[in-house]
Amino acid sequence: MGFVLWCPRCGVRLREGEYRPWCPRCKGPLEAEGLPRLGPVLGEGSTPLVEVGGGVRAKMEYLNPSGSFKDRGAGYSLRLASMLGYDCVVVDSSGNTGLSTAVYSARLGLRARVFVPRRASPGKKVLIRAAGAELVEAASREEAARLAEAEAERCFHVAHPTSPLFLEGVKSLGREMAGEARSGSTVLVPASSGTLLLGIYRGVKEAGRDFRLIAVQSPAAYSLKGLVPELGLTGGGEGKLLDALLLARPPRLGEMARAVVDSGGGVVVVGDEAVPGAVRTALRKGFLIEPSSAAVFAALEVLREKGILPGDTILVLTGSGLKYASLLEKLSAGAI
Amino acid sequence: MGFVLWCPRCGVRLREGEYRPWCPRCKGPLEAEGLPRLGPVLGEGSTPLVEVGGGVRAKMEYLNPSGSFKDRGAGYSLRLASMLGYDCVVVDSSGNTGLSTAVYSARLGLRARVFVPRRASPGKKVLIRAAGAELVEAASREEAARLAEAEAERCFHVAHPTSPLFLEGVKSLGREMAGEARSGSTVLVPASSGTLLLGIYRGVKEAGRDFRLIAVQSPAAYSLKGLVPELGLTGGGEGKLLDALLLARPPRLGEMARAVVDSGGGVVVVGDEAVPGAVRTALRKGFLIEPSSAAVFAALEVLREKGILPGDTILVLTGSGLKYASLLEKLSAGAI
Repeated sequence: MGFVLWCPRCGVRLREGEYRPWCPRCKGPLEAEGLPRLGPVLGEGSTPLVEVGGGVRAKMEYLNPSGSFKDRGAGYSLRLASMLGYDCVVVDSSGNTGLSTAVYSARLGLRARVFVPRRASPGKKVLIRAAGAELVEAASREEAARLAEAEAERCFHVAHPTSPLFLEGVKSLGREMAGEARSGSTVLVPASSGTLLLGIYRGVKEAGRDFRLIAVQSPAAYSLKGLVPELGLTGGGEGKLLDALLLARPPRLGEMARAVVDSGGGVVVVGDEAVPGAVRTALRKGFLIEPSSAAVFAALEVLREKGILPGDTILVLTGSGLKYASLLEKLSAGAI
Repeated sequence: MGFVLWCPRCGVRLREGEYRPWCPRCKGPLEAEGLPRLGPVLGEGSTPLVEVGGGVRAKMEYLNPSGSFKDRGAGYSLRLASMLGYDCVVVDSSGNTGLSTAVYSARLGLRARVFVPRRASPGKKVLIRAAGAELVEAASREEAARLAEAEAERCFHVAHPTSPLFLEGVKSLGREMAGEARSGSTVLVPASSGTLLLGIYRGVKEAGRDFRLIAVQSPAAYSLKGLVPELGLTGGGEGKLLDALLLARPPRLGEMARAVVDSGGGVVVVGDEAVPGAVRTALRKGFLIEPSSAAVFAALEVLREKGILPGDTILVLTGSGLKYASLLEKLSAGAI
């Protein structure tokens, strides 16, 4: 295990093969050198890329084994955790990372505790327990993070918003997309913790391509505000239907902003009232995705109306709608 | 559209390019000549094949776009229906085909009516409506079939247990598996309407391979009884948890039996009391699948105990557990 984690902020270098979810001195996100390339653990990755029409395609990341792109990060992190000798795992999550952690922990024979905010999707909470993890509900996303941190001494902490291992796993998506689209393509990507955005950015760079990255955020977690060009804002609200886009202060925010700006992209904020229509658009095209994923369809419409959507475009569809049956039914029927 | 449908039982040949869900004279299943090879409609197919351990692998068909292998058949049938000029679709289904039809109808701009038995999974019913189809509940699986038939004059009837188009779509799974496993491999496959079993059988043959096919059935729909070698029977029951294995008299039963016997295989019947354990086994290995799919794990155990499982084995995991969150949670906790 010849990897080394180090802190770009304060310079700390950990011992070879030592894992920490963040810098032990300044708590900043760590970087990694010499991480191994690992194959899929449970068939994650290699998801379909299909036509949406008008030069737009959709990357169906929701068809990963636990129903979200998080499987790329969880698969990689937990395989490495297992190789490092850990036998237990903790994570705090708004839902998808929690389920992914539960599924991959089961797969790899690790015990998992998952801390979720109370407002996480009921379907996801039930599935996390079904997959065999212990579920702990917290008052908020931040409280869930504090509770998980308290257990991070004994167990492997997935810590997806900071961990360079999780990011390394998600990079496989960027490498994959680099083989599927030309340089200069635009990618619309929901951005909360930033692992998806940064994983794509790094993976694409590594493969020698350049994509324009447009982040899609909720008004309730508009972390990129003032840091990158605002290409559209469909209104405000509390982001009630966007329960996978809750992280208001992602630890890699500076890097997220630099990636967006460097790529020539920007951010679109999707207000609450635009979500039901976006979900119906997605369903009409056959995409059974969760509302937080459907937000990219609202962003697409905004960019089209403004005439600022050139050339090839890819929508990253992040999470499965199968976890949201009742909500989708109501949205589909126009009852919300 | 140079295809012709004909009846192997009574000899009727339809006009070139004419579709009927079954023979207009004897109501038997039709065969097809000259069907076109069509690509995926929404990224269906090319599902992961992953290790289970001990020479056993799992084909993750539940990662198709609507969460089941049915997408292969629905994608093919409905693309062809669209090419033939139909603008509406009907289907009767215990759930998965209904959802698949709803999703692919939305994708292709077709109106869909889906007839399901009342005992179909609540999650699936909700999702069928969410995907934009009209859902009609019937007293039983048979009653759903009668209601759909009454509408089959105006609209394209998916009729998956008889239609040679649906079977043609599912054949892509057999061709795919033929490229992933050696001749002589054993395949454990849930068998209800028979399209999965026959699709694999025909696709594998077409690719010049031979797999031994072992059908897995519910005691409530043990259609192969007395027709093929019974390799195991774990007990009886009403098949309450096996709601995707409801069809007691599949129209292609004779052909199903010949395929199993010709392949050197047999049938394993999974009784009610074996299902919860099978679901827990599946979840422990990271497979979020529905109980009807998990039945193959119970069958695997029976075959292992009897020492009749030679060489390479593939379990076909047919349907997603994301549609069964609450039920899986109860099964996982041992409450059922």
